[in-house]
Amino acid sequence: MLLDKISKENDIKKLNHDELKPLAAEIREFLIEKISKTGGHLGSNLGAVELTMALHLELNFPEDKLIWDVGHQSYTHKLLTGRKEGFDKLRKYGGLSGFPKRKESDCDCFDTGHSSTSISAGLGLVKARDIKGENHTVISVIGDGSLTGGMAYEALNNAARLESNFIIILNDNNMSISENVGGMSKYLNSVRTADAYLDIKEGVYNTLMDVPKYGDKVARGIQKAKKTFKQMVIPGMFFEDLGIRYMGAVDGHDIAKISRLIRESKRINQAVLIHVMTQKGKGFAPAERHPARFHGAEPFDIETGLPSNKRVANYTDVFSTVMTKLGTRDERIVAITAAMPDGTGLKRFRNMFPERFFDVGIAEEHAVTFAAGLAAGGMKPIVAIYSSFLQRSYDQILHDVCIQNLPVVFAVDRAGLVGSDGETHQGIFDLSFLSSIPNMHIMAPKNKWELSDMLKFAVAFDGPIAVRYPRGEAYDGLSEYRKPINLGLAEVIYEEEEICLIAVGSMVKEAEIIRKVLKEAGYYCSLINARFIKPIDEELILRAAKVHKLIVTMEENVASGGFGEKVLRLLTESGSAAKVLSVAVPDEYVEHGNVDVLKKEIGIDDKSIIRAILKALD
Amino acid sequence: MLLDKISKENDIKKLNHDELKPLAAEIREFLIEKISKTGGHLGSNLGAVELTMALHLELNFPEDKLIWDVGHQSYTHKLLTGRKEGFDKLRKYGGLSGFPKRKESDCDCFDTGHSSTSISAGLGLVKARDIKGENHTVISVIGDGSLTGGMAYEALNNAARLESNFIIILNDNNMSISENVGGMSKYLNSVRTADAYLDIKEGVYNTLMDVPKYGDKVARGIQKAKKTFKQMVIPGMFFEDLGIRYMGAVDGHDIAKISRLIRESKRINQAVLIHVMTQKGKGFAPAERHPARFHGAEPFDIETGLPSNKRVANYTDVFSTVMTKLGTRDERIVAITAAMPDGTGLKRFRNMFPERFFDVGIAEEHAVTFAAGLAAGGMKPIVAIYSSFLQRSYDQILHDVCIQNLPVVFAVDRAGLVGSDGETHQGIFDLSFLSSIPNMHIMAPKNKWELSDMLKFAVAFDGPIAVRYPRGEAYDGLSEYRKPINLGLAEVIYEEEEICLIAVGSMVKEAEIIRKVLKEAGYYCSLINARFIKPIDEELILRAAKVHKLIVTMEENVASGGFGEKVLRLLTESGSAAKVLSVAVPDEYVEHGNVDVLKKEIGIDDKSIIRAILKALD
Repeated sequence: MLLDKISKENDIKKLNHDELKPLAAEIREFLIEKISKTGGHLGSNLGAVELTMALHLELNFPEDKLIWDVGHQSYTHKLLTGRKEGFDKLRKYGGLSGFPKRKESDCDCFDTGHSSTSISAGLGLVKARDIKGENHTVISVIGDGSLTGGMAYEALNNAARLESNFIIILNDNNMSISENVGGMSKYLNSVRTADAYLDIKEGVYNTLMDVPKYGDKVARGIQKAKKTFKQMVIPGMFFEDLGIRYMGAVDGHDIAKISRLIRESKRINQAVLIHVMTQKGKGFAPAERHPARFHGAEPFDIETGLPSNKRVANYTDVFSTVMTKLGTRDERIVAITAAMPDGTGLKRFRNMFPERFFDVGIAEEHAVTFAAGLAAGGMKPIVAIYSSFLQRSYDQILHDVCIQNLPVVFAVDRAGLVGSDGETHQGIFDLSFLSSIPNMHIMAPKNKWELSDMLKFAVAFDGPIAVRYPRGEAYDGLSEYRKPINLGLAEVIYEEEEICLIAVGSMVKEAEIIRKVLKEAGYYCSLINARFIKPIDEELILRAAKVHKLIVTMEENVASGGFGEKVLRLLTESGSAAKVLSVAVPDEYVEHGNVDVLKKEIGIDDKSIIRAILKALD
Repeated sequence: MLLDKISKENDIKKLNHDELKPLAAEIREFLIEKISKTGGHLGSNLGAVELTMALHLELNFPEDKLIWDVGHQSYTHKLLTGRKEGFDKLRKYGGLSGFPKRKESDCDCFDTGHSSTSISAGLGLVKARDIKGENHTVISVIGDGSLTGGMAYEALNNAARLESNFIIILNDNNMSISENVGGMSKYLNSVRTADAYLDIKEGVYNTLMDVPKYGDKVARGIQKAKKTFKQMVIPGMFFEDLGIRYMGAVDGHDIAKISRLIRESKRINQAVLIHVMTQKGKGFAPAERHPARFHGAEPFDIETGLPSNKRVANYTDVFSTVMTKLGTRDERIVAITAAMPDGTGLKRFRNMFPERFFDVGIAEEHAVTFAAGLAAGGMKPIVAIYSSFLQRSYDQILHDVCIQNLPVVFAVDRAGLVGSDGETHQGIFDLSFLSSIPNMHIMAPKNKWELSDMLKFAVAFDGPIAVRYPRGEAYDGLSEYRKPINLGLAEVIYEEEEICLIAVGSMVKEAEIIRKVLKEAGYYCSLINARFIKPIDEELILRAAKVHKLIVTMEENVASGGFGEKVLRLLTESGSAAKVLSVAVPDEYVEHGNVDVLKKEIGIDDKSIIRAILKALD
């Protein structure tokens, strides 16, 4: 095995030229085998094998700095920097992260996870290098999907006036997670398929060359014109107009060609963009055919490409079904996704109502203000964005939707712990940042039927409203509790005394388990499903505070600004002396791993909560 | 007076062509006179007089939809839509807002205040129009400064594939608030000064036309080439590459020319950008010469252009002075602003250390991740962004700075109520959104010396840390209290019993007044300056809870996720039975007006707080 010769960074340089292609094949085989067992980002990694190898041939680690945008394509980089053994525990608790991590290796110079950050970070590293008078190379690798995010453009705009070297590699696979959208994508396509266009360019150029001379003035005019013209027909003029030097487009699976461009671009004292064309899923037929499915893959069977585990019905499915129903009933309903028609479950809505469906690309800020515009125009927009990505729209929700009190529905999927994607993807802040915003309303369903009811309530509601629901299996317990949703009202599931569990969304299931254990131990225990996080059900909670010895609030969100603090404030303001235990995610980032393991680690699993309750009762 | 003939929208159309120029002059005179008394955005409004008139000549209000980016250039629009009388109370409580407001007029179709939102909102209105089968015109007016914001690009990228009419007017004055930065600005400049370039274009074009025919194949080649070439040399190719039709550049003070372009562009079934060149401050010499000073102007003397009121020393001055000292002492210190070198006070730092100063344009997201990159490269970045604009970087702070625990200092100016700019600019959310983020530290100074001490502490601190301070006069009381800053420790100013005021930053001054009144009324009263909002001084607060009858927390921030809730949680978790009164901004947007008036309105002035304390003591 050639891979065995590579135990640390820079080892790849010891291989012969002839060994590179076989190494690429070995890496692909390795990745497919490992990811088929652990799950992970397959397509993006298979597409970046040769590009990563070329980078490792041309750079010196850890001196040179390589930033991976999003970071889900960094597996080959991990393999080439001594982390091969880690792949058996990829994305498991305590194991290798699926994203670059400074903690893991000094060859990872900047942590990523969300999209479109790499050029900004790279520019920071460039400026730090220049101020310190150092001269290593800094390279940011960004996908064409990530280029639809506004902050990438903000960064390009700033890189434009750079007078030292900074290399940006555009890893263009003509995809974000699903198909790409927008003008930039169309533009890149035109550059990619520029053969005809290059012919034309040569045609015009030759014609100009052949023009007979009419005397000095005309000749000079033509000379000038030629120069101008040459500038104009360079592919990548868009980037050149912005002030970024453009090189390419080059075959992203040709190591030698990419290497040569990297070497050439190192000599240029400005920001250079190398346009590299890759194929997502390259080398694994099922991933080439179904790029969205193999973007973030569950464990799968290598032969068939089919998932190894039985697919369970999840909240996204419920959202998907309800959306098509709502779309049929009300023509004002429009749906917006930021590059995730599959992930959010909006694909069916798109297929049924293409003219009322909008995939805006990886552009969460635009998504929200666009929705505000639609609402101001009389539509009923539903914006479906994962909790951790919605963070990027905080100002737009606050400034464009809520000040005007516009009826925009936020479908906040992946709220709470998401598991194997780790720190950057945990949806544990939305209750806090959404709660801080006036006019906002927030709900969380206890089970799949309640998600359906809440979505229907939300589209009928005249103001900004969010429904947050977790990743993974949809809870189908407590199906007999289905009182109609009423603004700001919680739902009493069991009414007793002594202990009162008030649980938010996903924690109702947990509370149900906890209550059983407490009952068996001889305690009386009420269970309230909060339903609304904003506004909270003040009357019910105050009443509960009077008849119980202990109030326990439970939420999958950080404590600061969450549901528990609202309950505390209510009780304090009303002069209640009730004892309260607030269960929430502690004030720390939560790493990758199985959700159940993570819950135990941070003390919000049933056993930890029971211990805390018993202690509080003492 | 021609202005007297205009009492409502569309009245301008009744004027003769000859009356337009004199009307423009009257409008300028009116604006200068009114703003000289009330203060307000002068430069941007003087620059947009003719553009606004042309828009009002070509559009029908309220059917057609006009969105003003940022909105600080909408005064002429307000004048032409029946709001002339309101200008005497411009930006005063209960008076006319300085920004578009749906509440004010049905000719304002979308509220703005922050930058770069207008194309997203406009696109939403366009799609709503098309789905409903209506056919009014939608126009977004965006400045070249706002075009540096990423979400404007996200929106352009989405507008690109539109197959119906949407007009974007680029109001290009070659400025954001200060000078413009970046590649886009350079590019627009090249288009603006494209005379030479147009000559070349024509030269080449004519040359091509003159080429003799060599037979069919060549002729066809040349035809194709001509078409291609024509496309290439159109100025505004950047926008055309993105898929936006470009028209211009046109003199922004020539009403007839702008009108003609608007009429022409209405016929195009795609997104059109009209490039209009205007001069900021046009018609008022002091504003033409000092665009930054007259961006958001205080009341001024019309003759001299000098401010009417004596300038008071403010927190920004303190920041400015400390920054130059810090810059001298430590070469790793770098400073970053998002288009506000004047407003943030970084101008002096820029003049002294140009190579360590970065104005990134209106690009708050990039600013923060760029700072993270600088910190990862060993620098000590200080990011100076106003509280309400920092909202736009929530994800970047959380995801790019704090996960990696990077030493980035956030200088959060204009925190708390800012007054006359109103809802969109109040800095009343930063304690909440920053508190929700793990690894973040937050301080607020009681007076000007403490701001200095805190900044020095912050740059020496190894992790993410924010200092938030208010707009306006720097408090110089309590100068004798200047114990060194220690992480997480509050400062006891008066230690008594009965009532304990724990105040955050600007509220310490208020607490000092309240304490005097309470003392005179015979109460004993301690005063603690919180200093740290995160982490809070748990030990001191718990001790205070034991010896006082009432704890009063005071902050200029919304209650949800603020300082008060943290204190409540601490006391609850420790089993304290202390009575607590939390004084904070209520859960609502706060309109424009004098800060003292606003404080009374929302119940956080001294008198309201005293009443609440006495009630709580009952």
